[in-house]
Amino acid sequence: MTPNRLKKLLSQVKNGALPVEEAYGRLKGFSQEELGFATLDHHRHIRQGFPEVIFCLGKTDRQILTLLTHSAKRHPRILATRVKPETFQLISTEFPSARYNELGKTVVISRADKNKIKSKGAILIITAGTSDIYIGEEARETATILGSRVETLYDVGVAGIHRILDKKSLMDQARVLIVIAGMDGVLPSVIGGLSDKPLIAVPSSQGYGASLNGLAPLLTMLNACAAGIGVMNIDNGFGAAVLAHRINTLK
Amino acid sequence: MTPNRLKKLLSQVKNGALPVEEAYGRLKGFSQEELGFATLDHHRHIRQGFPEVIFCLGKTDRQILTLLTHSAKRHPRILATRVKPETFQLISTEFPSARYNELGKTVVISRADKNKIKSKGAILIITAGTSDIYIGEEARETATILGSRVETLYDVGVAGIHRILDKKSLMDQARVLIVIAGMDGVLPSVIGGLSDKPLIAVPSSQGYGASLNGLAPLLTMLNACAAGIGVMNIDNGFGAAVLAHRINTLK
Amino acid sequence: MTPNRLKKLLSQVKNGALPVEEAYGRLKGFSQEELGFATLDHHRHIRQGFPEVIFCLGKTDRQILTLLTHSAKRHPRILATRVKPETFQLISTEFPSARYNELGKTVVISRADKNKIKSKGAILIITAGTSDIYIGEEARETATILGSRVETLYDVGVAGIHRILDKKSLMDQARVLIVIAGMDGVLPSVIGGLSDKPLIAVPSSQGYGASLNGLAPLLTMLNACAAGIGVMNIDNGFGAAVLAHRINTLK
Amino acid sequence: MTPNRLKKLLSQVKNGALPVEEAYGRLKGFSQEELGFATLDHHRHIRQGFPEVIFCLGKTDRQILTLLTHSAKRHPRILATRVKPETFQLISTEFPSARYNELGKTVVISRADKNKIKSKGAILIITAGTSDIYIGEEARETATILGSRVETLYDVGVAGIHRILDKKSLMDQARVLIVIAGMDGVLPSVIGGLSDKPLIAVPSSQGYGASLNGLAPLLTMLNACAAGIGVMNIDNGFGAAVLAHRINTLK
Amino acid sequence: MTPNRLKKLLSQVKNGALPVEEAYGRLKGFSQEELGFATLDHHRHIRQGFPEVIFCLGKTDRQILTLLTHSAKRHPRILATRVKPETFQLISTEFPSARYNELGKTVVISRADKNKIKSKGAILIITAGTSDIYIGEEARETATILGSRVETLYDVGVAGIHRILDKKSLMDQARVLIVIAGMDGVLPSVIGGLSDKPLIAVPSSQGYGASLNGLAPLLTMLNACAAGIGVMNIDNGFGAAVLAHRINTLK
Amino acid sequence: MTPNRLKKLLSQVKNGALPVEEAYGRLKGFSQEELGFATLDHHRHIRQGFPEVIFCLGKTDRQILTLLTHSAKRHPRILATRVKPETFQLISTEFPSARYNELGKTVVISRADKNKIKSKGAILIITAGTSDIYIGEEARETATILGSRVETLYDVGVAGIHRILDKKSLMDQARVLIVIAGMDGVLPSVIGGLSDKPLIAVPSSQGYGASLNGLAPLLTMLNACAAGIGVMNIDNGFGAAVLAHRINTLK
Amino acid sequence: MTPNRLKKLLSQVKNGALPVEEAYGRLKGFSQEELGFATLDHHRHIRQGFPEVIFCLGKTDRQILTLLTHSAKRHPRILATRVKPETFQLISTEFPSARYNELGKTVVISRADKNKIKSKGAILIITAGTSDIYIGEEARETATILGSRVETLYDVGVAGIHRILDKKSLMDQARVLIVIAGMDGVLPSVIGGLSDKPLIAVPSSQGYGASLNGLAPLLTMLNACAAGIGVMNIDNGFGAAVLAHRINTLK
Amino acid sequence: MTPNRLKKLLSQVKNGALPVEEAYGRLKGFSQEELGFATLDHHRHIRQGFPEVIFCLGKTDRQILTLLTHSAKRHPRILATRVKPETFQLISTEFPSARYNELGKTVVISRADKNKIKSKGAILIITAGTSDIYIGEEARETATILGSRVETLYDVGVAGIHRILDKKSLMDQARVLIVIAGMDGVLPSVIGGLSDKPLIAVPSSQGYGASLNGLAPLLTMLNACAAGIGVMNIDNGFGAAVLAHRINTLK
Repeated sequence: MTPNRLKKLLSQVKNGALPVEEAYGRLKGFSQEELGFATLDHHRHIRQGFPEVIFCLGKTDRQILTLLTHSAKRHPRILATRVKPETFQLISTEFPSARYNELGKTVVISRADKNKIKSKGAILIITAGTSDIYIGEEARETATILGSRVETLYDVGVAGIHRILDKKSLMDQARVLIVIAGMDGVLPSVIGGLSDKPLIAVPSSQGYGASLNGLAPLLTMLNACAAGIGVMNIDNGFGAAVLAHRINTLK
Repeated sequence: MTPNRLKKLLSQVKNGALPVEEAYGRLKGFSQEELGFATLDHHRHIRQGFPEVIFCLGKTDRQILTLLTHSAKRHPRILATRVKPETFQLISTEFPSARYNELGKTVVISRADKNKIKSKGAILIITAGTSDIYIGEEARETATILGSRVETLYDVGVAGIHRILDKKSLMDQARVLIVIAGMDGVLPSVIGGLSDKPLIAVPSSQGYGASLNGLAPLLTMLNACAAGIGVMNIDNGFGAAVLAHRINTLK
Repeated sequence: MTPNRLKKLLSQVKNGALPVEEAYGRLKGFSQEELGFATLDHHRHIRQGFPEVIFCLGKTDRQILTLLTHSAKRHPRILATRVKPETFQLISTEFPSARYNELGKTVVISRADKNKIKSKGAILIITAGTSDIYIGEEARETATILGSRVETLYDVGVAGIHRILDKKSLMDQARVLIVIAGMDGVLPSVIGGLSDKPLIAVPSSQGYGASLNGLAPLLTMLNACAAGIGVMNIDNGFGAAVLAHRINTLK
Repeated sequence: MTPNRLKKLLSQVKNGALPVEEAYGRLKGFSQEELGFATLDHHRHIRQGFPEVIFCLGKTDRQILTLLTHSAKRHPRILATRVKPETFQLISTEFPSARYNELGKTVVISRADKNKIKSKGAILIITAGTSDIYIGEEARETATILGSRVETLYDVGVAGIHRILDKKSLMDQARVLIVIAGMDGVLPSVIGGLSDKPLIAVPSSQGYGASLNGLAPLLTMLNACAAGIGVMNIDNGFGAAVLAHRINTLK
Repeated sequence: MTPNRLKKLLSQVKNGALPVEEAYGRLKGFSQEELGFATLDHHRHIRQGFPEVIFCLGKTDRQILTLLTHSAKRHPRILATRVKPETFQLISTEFPSARYNELGKTVVISRADKNKIKSKGAILIITAGTSDIYIGEEARETATILGSRVETLYDVGVAGIHRILDKKSLMDQARVLIVIAGMDGVLPSVIGGLSDKPLIAVPSSQGYGASLNGLAPLLTMLNACAAGIGVMNIDNGFGAAVLAHRINTLK
Repeated sequence: MTPNRLKKLLSQVKNGALPVEEAYGRLKGFSQEELGFATLDHHRHIRQGFPEVIFCLGKTDRQILTLLTHSAKRHPRILATRVKPETFQLISTEFPSARYNELGKTVVISRADKNKIKSKGAILIITAGTSDIYIGEEARETATILGSRVETLYDVGVAGIHRILDKKSLMDQARVLIVIAGMDGVLPSVIGGLSDKPLIAVPSSQGYGASLNGLAPLLTMLNACAAGIGVMNIDNGFGAAVLAHRINTLK
Repeated sequence: MTPNRLKKLLSQVKNGALPVEEAYGRLKGFSQEELGFATLDHHRHIRQGFPEVIFCLGKTDRQILTLLTHSAKRHPRILATRVKPETFQLISTEFPSARYNELGKTVVISRADKNKIKSKGAILIITAGTSDIYIGEEARETATILGSRVETLYDVGVAGIHRILDKKSLMDQARVLIVIAGMDGVLPSVIGGLSDKPLIAVPSSQGYGASLNGLAPLLTMLNACAAGIGVMNIDNGFGAAVLAHRINTLK
Repeated sequence: MTPNRLKKLLSQVKNGALPVEEAYGRLKGFSQEELGFATLDHHRHIRQGFPEVIFCLGKTDRQILTLLTHSAKRHPRILATRVKPETFQLISTEFPSARYNELGKTVVISRADKNKIKSKGAILIITAGTSDIYIGEEARETATILGSRVETLYDVGVAGIHRILDKKSLMDQARVLIVIAGMDGVLPSVIGGLSDKPLIAVPSSQGYGASLNGLAPLLTMLNACAAGIGVMNIDNGFGAAVLAHRINTLK
């Protein structure tokens, strides 16, 4: 309900075209239908060209296919995350153009020719180990479809820290860093001491024993001695990409 | 050692003003003393005008006073966090100009007349309850001394959410949001659904029972359904401010 | 043992029809057999027409079939919960009329034509996401067989909160609300701020990482800032339905 | 804004007493200020005669006094919870009529002569031990000021279960039960087997060792074998009373 | 009501000394008051000469004094556990004969000249360290007042295991062992490998860091490789003594 | 080796009846074989006729078969616990007389005709639910092979507590009780209030959500309000049987 | 870059053979490429003949094969840990000489004829049970390929402690001990009381219930009453071997 | 007692040089004093000149003074750890020569003029922050009194890592490293990448929020990506020093 429609309604009351009781009924509903969270949320989609995202964990194959079908009618680009290989088999029969990222477990269905880059700079995604790449790939796919430029630097642990020092220029050119690590989760602390860029840390669930499925690196990152590190949920490459993209598109 | 000084040194070698051996001695120190982590860290201070920060938790009064005295010689502005009232009594006898924030438990010692604003926009700090304000104040003092403009919106819970809706323009004008909440920690989820700004969530240790000294809101924030929220350690207003300021000064 | 039977026994002692020793033996047993929890528990079944419920988690297929066979002789309506699809295959060969709810994992065996509605109002079951529906369905089947009218509102997260605002009349017409959510578990807090109805919150185990198999939303709900929310065990749709039905049938 | 006030406004527009522009201004504010979460919350106060409640944990004495002074102007009855004895000393000098419940740590400031009973039945509050009474008293004060009739049955453990059996009529006459227990937290399970009344369980933090400050009874209650028990946060007598009162005032 | 009193009552009915109605009245009360859980509990007192026990943790001084005064009228011997020194000061003014065990934090008020030993053998209480003695003393006082003979062997860690080997005859003569340890809690595992006596293990909360206030030794004891060790709550010397006494008085 | 035997040996050396080398051989063995933990452990087998027990969890099939083959040569009766059905297939081809308890997951290989009862009384094993029977069966097999008489009372929850009241005579006749429960784990607390017999509580891992794989009932039992309950590790029916048998064979 | 190369470069600048700008370019890179963590790490390989180690947990088969192929070109000996049997099938087709340790889940690919022993003494690896041997074997393979002599003593629990006493000479001859245990994890405490050798404790994840997948023995070891025990992550036989080898090769 | 000495003793008995009774006395003592845990423990003191150590946490002042008095008679040097300042006041009146380390909370009572250095090399103790020094000082005092040379490098965090790089020669000269850190606990990981020396990591309890009183750095260290780090209990500077000294005195 726009201001114009509200004023028109009041005029109708004034000139008798609308009885008081009926106007009351409409106004009572007014705030419920058009203000509140929903509209703002809806606007965001329109405003940002934000693609539809379907989080597939815990959904049945049937539910996922239904959601994809509905979304495909309204959205030119769809991102599905946490998609099992078996589920992708089903998806690809319905959507032959769907593209699967095996490591990142993401599916992209896109009618647009290619992503339009809207960001000012690049997001640099760094992983400590090879076994953390699945998070990096989820983040890369997400940030890319959102419209950010993405660079990756995988498998840079403390043992191989020269690789990141060698590519410090990459870090200097990036606008935001996403740093992913499992087990001891120290990489964000170390990189946070090397760079002033906004840094988003993602703990990985890969590991064993006292890594407690990612709780250990999560705690390390929350306690990082290098100040100013924002931490995501374990394995949440998607969320890291969304936050990084928001920062990357700040004017 | 700046590029200029390095080139000058090499020129002095070339024109014989500096013997090879002596140049070697200096350059040997160069990589150890001025490159590597330490230098970058040191440069950041110079580059950003980042003030000296002393984290006082777990330090004895004597240690704190020694650190302040040393810092005061080199830094025009010092921020001390987690300062107990008793400790501030001791500080203020040594540093009569020291200013104490009773709620935020911060001390600022500044020779500069006032902070120079270096940020493009403002950081908006929001707390869910009155009892979370201590975190907000720590963040406000930190972000201010770093050079960011700061707005605050305290005591905005779910019950009083109209207050934030009323001031949605504040949110729209801010460049970064810091959202602080204890107990159920739902405020970042709700605000994350209302705004696209980069959002930093800080769990508060205030509460009782199943809030587990802040672990409950910490988990809520890590699991936030609104994507793209970076989470800080419990009560870490300082860290939130550093990250927010980094984002706020992105060009 | 009714007062009459007790007085009769004492008269028999008095007039010598019952020796003291034998009377002693009966009275010793008296309190053991007819007072205590068991009787009250037994009465409840008779009084409420409460159906037999078989909780199948941790039981072998053989045990489940035996229990169903025994129950089917005495109870017109049986509800089995947490039934695996494989187990239902076995059940349906024995009980061809058994009905399986695939999402809710419940089996209903009913000789009665249809449930008699005994409740004054309706229970409204709300889930935050699609992946929480399995709990909603367990609750719906349970409340229905108990005799409550049930309405459902599935997949209403913070992002889609307009859907519940649109259907606020449903909430107003309901007598009790069951609100189910996983991950951050914020939905009960938000709905608790919108409605004065008794609200039962159920955390979902669906999620990953720091959701800790439902512990995170459990903690959120226990700490809910909206006062007056009763929390159930993780995934316990059955228990939520029983409590909701008890409230719904209050006169 | 009550329905009456809204209809009156519309009538004023109709009969020209209020210009369209001015009506628009008020209505524009209406949806922001008086509808949405805030208004509903506000309306609840009017509708239910719900008193103002101030939760004092984590607030400074100064903050508490300020809040009380502000509230006292608008509300005839104020409830403050988690008030330390020292804080009450300060309160009582400002509000000589303030009444302190030493065990329940509540303060009531009431201009009304006495509470008007609005509930249909009574809430029965049961504690397992003497050391759980502080929660019972918080619940009793809260439910009473909300307008419910309250009965108490304190210190009824498993060892003394005859006391509750003796007073089973109290349980039968109550409409809702609040059952409070610490350590093993078994009382709700046992009473849940004896009564069909809606039962709200509150774990107590009193105990030692493996009671883990109330986590053990909290877990016991969440896992209660007696179906249909709603669980509150540890020590949350206030929340239990609010939920019990909502159930108790259901028509 | 003992079997004798019940038979006597029935005889009185038989010979007309007691009218049926009056006998009914007494027997009606009998099942409610003296049978069921309560009665059994009550009977235990009579049968075993079990003293009254008051657990003082979480009770106010006023509550403790009231309970002691009530108990002192009915019970010749009272045991109060977890009594703070300050509280004992108050108790001793009311009960000058009260005896305080400073380490065990127990108070004994006894009109009987001395405890009558009812047990067949002795309970041997062993502690790993000096700092665990407080639990040993609580257990010793409890078992002694219950009527068991008690021997103690304090401060026997792995480093000083020769002390227990030297006194293996003590272990062989005991009927039950109570073994108390903090930190790594290994002593019960070691002694469980040396002796076939029923062994009750009590974890101590004394320690630091990863002892987690007694959770670490609790877990060690629950996982003891020596089979057949019953574990008590952290610091629960009282409970260990009750179980040991029950075993010790088995015929 | 008693002092007498040692002196006799030395005398034999002195008078030449025993060569030095042979005496040395015996004495060398003396300290290694007959003192220290090992000997005592070894003696226990001889003294008690304790069967060989093989705990199969975490062992490979090959390791299990090797251990069984070795044991079968020296021991007339062998008990294997935690044996998977697949593993039993392998065992039964080697040991055709091996008997498998499908619920208890135990294997018994016995050359003896039948167990000799050595205990004075009986052990009564009680489970709260059907899904806890696997622990009861492990305990029953263990206690039986050790030589205790065993009675069982399965599936006695709070809802069906009349079943245990009906069979209170069984409890009265037993010498020790083993009480097994999952989820809320309240049964030991309730039975501990009904009986003075030594009571061993075993938490079951069966359950879901906040039962935390048995941690919840474990905590309940450790906190049991009924004093004097010894708690075993989760699912540890074997250990409960060993402790019960030790108590049952006390003279 | 060695001192010699640095001096040569400076001489070239001096005598004009190298222009200032070009020298600057090389020196700028100098500190980044050849000093810092990377170089030191690299040097270690050369200095110690440390083999390449590939940790396979969380890596895909394709990643593992790629890493092995790359490593095999540069390293004469490769150790791969946490290799699943299925993965080894793939490896052995590519590397027919690869040797698999089924229990330890390690693969060794070695072109060298045999390991050169570089250590002064031996590492003694002790396990409490048969089910902990998998850790012992991982440690044995690792320490052997590093160049240490290794002795093993498997399946020495508290029940069989005579086996280790018998072989105390082995302990005395060893230079370092690795002690592995699950469940109660007491073995390191006991051995730590018997030997002064540096002792490395490794908790095993084998067990059930309250062993919490190795957290219980981990806590026991961290709290060990025998001072001076270094603890490794759960199941970390590899890390224990590396530390033991470092100690073993100390001069 | 070596085989030779045993054979000699037996020969002396044979040839009458040693009466049977006296031989019995020695052999009786043999098994008790020289075999088993106790003797070895005793010998260690004699062999190593290990001082008496009294761990004061959880002991009463009276107990501590008694232990000190007893020890002072037999030991030339005593170390007491975890001594509160108040307790030291009492100690110093009894032992005027006692020396208190305020930060390390240790007391040393020594009749010997100075410690004799028995170690081959030095132990280097490194702390990440100023607030971790209390652990470093406990370790320094312990290692020094044991006879090791000790160097310290305090307050070396990631931010100030150049300080440790500057002093890398110190690290190279040390034989063992003790690295202490709180909060994120990353320092051992970083130093473990720089040095091949045996490294003992000690987590500090100093911190707040998600540092969980030292559990977070404990987990980080257990998961350290740099292989071969032995971890101690939180705050256990004493244990670290004992292990370091054992390594340092290896020949």
